[in-house]
Amino acid sequence: MNKLTPLLAIETSDKICGVCIVSESNEFFSIQSDKIYSHSEALFEQIELIQKQSKIDIKELKSIAVSIGPGSFTGLRIGLAAAKGIAAGLNIPIIPVPTFEAFAFQISAILPEGFSFYIANRASKDECYFAKFFVKSNSYIFDSELKIINQSDLNALDQNMIFGNLSRVINRPYSPDPLYVAKWASNFGIEKLVYDIDFLEPNYIKDFIVRRKNNEKISH
Amino acid sequence: MNKLTPLLAIETSDKICGVCIVSESNEFFSIQSDKIYSHSEALFEQIELIQKQSKIDIKELKSIAVSIGPGSFTGLRIGLAAAKGIAAGLNIPIIPVPTFEAFAFQISAILPEGFSFYIANRASKDECYFAKFFVKSNSYIFDSELKIINQSDLNALDQNMIFGNLSRVINRPYSPDPLYVAKWASNFGIEKLVYDIDFLEPNYIKDFIVRRKNNEKISH
Repeated sequence: MNKLTPLLAIETSDKICGVCIVSESNEFFSIQSDKIYSHSEALFEQIELIQKQSKIDIKELKSIAVSIGPGSFTGLRIGLAAAKGIAAGLNIPIIPVPTFEAFAFQISAILPEGFSFYIANRASKDECYFAKFFVKSNSYIFDSELKIINQSDLNALDQNMIFGNLSRVINRPYSPDPLYVAKWASNFGIEKLVYDIDFLEPNYIKDFIVRRKNNEKISH
Repeated sequence: MNKLTPLLAIETSDKICGVCIVSESNEFFSIQSDKIYSHSEALFEQIELIQKQSKIDIKELKSIAVSIGPGSFTGLRIGLAAAKGIAAGLNIPIIPVPTFEAFAFQISAILPEGFSFYIANRASKDECYFAKFFVKSNSYIFDSELKIINQSDLNALDQNMIFGNLSRVINRPYSPDPLYVAKWASNFGIEKLVYDIDFLEPNYIKDFIVRRKNNEKISH
């Protein structure tokens, strides 16, 4: 018996806000939208609606997967706060899903074996979160660690193989489908369960920097 | 002003049942599930739920896009019947979306420029619906017309590049995301509007064959 399902996955790391329920028999039910600045309003409404669609009550959940970053400061806070609330209420564990890995898992299902690709998401005006992967056995392998680089460094790469919100390819998804946050959690989550959720934080990679008016940096 | 939006797209050609609303300002809201044998029950519930999520009432719709096949006999009938009902009630046009092209549009957003790929879906025990495409400018070009071939003919092809429900690659989507049915309709639908919906039929490519007990074929 799978201990993780019914599982609820939450994706709020970028412009898309969405949730996905995976049932005990591995059926999925998902809902998502790219309406801007609506995550805090949309998320709980989506959780409400997906319960109706799946006929699975939130009380039946065995785990909560949440896209943990890197990504939008506020988006990640909203997703994690919702996950913690539900996990605390039901006394179930959280699976923190690395956002780039869920997205790499999704991309690897379509790209041919052996292909290399990049994910690059804006981190600040000049910097971006960046990782390189290659496709192996319909999944992904890290080719370079997740790190922060200058956006100008992207110019030297094959633009065709850049995914994420700095991709210049139109129509391409720029953040993980909630279904693949759920699939990542189903495939790799059993070893990642977090029961002590108090100290769980989004993965921003670097500390956020607050600048005073005189441009002096204050880390916090 | 875009005459097509708000647009509702319906995808029921295969195991996945889903709908997507695109707003006048091009925001999307989608819901989908792969629960088996539930299309007739799930579809109208999904239409109900997506109205709540999008705050767009069905009465505001300007067009209905529906995945027209080839695909599941019953699934396509359910999707088209729903589309016709809404279109007739609101006196708005239907955009019949070629299922393989919506899926090719989705795949082309991820594969690199110039790549060839195939879509192959089971049509009968031995046959399949088949088309070959290549990626051009983040969209697709037909490389061979949609046709019916023997499933055994697929053995000669690069298995890595086969999509659809005969793909052997795990985790791969096997039918179009309702979002890409909507995107196809937004991009190409303006020239495909059907106002006289009475004679609109699913695209099964070939007539369904009913066999008598003595195995004599009756076309109908």
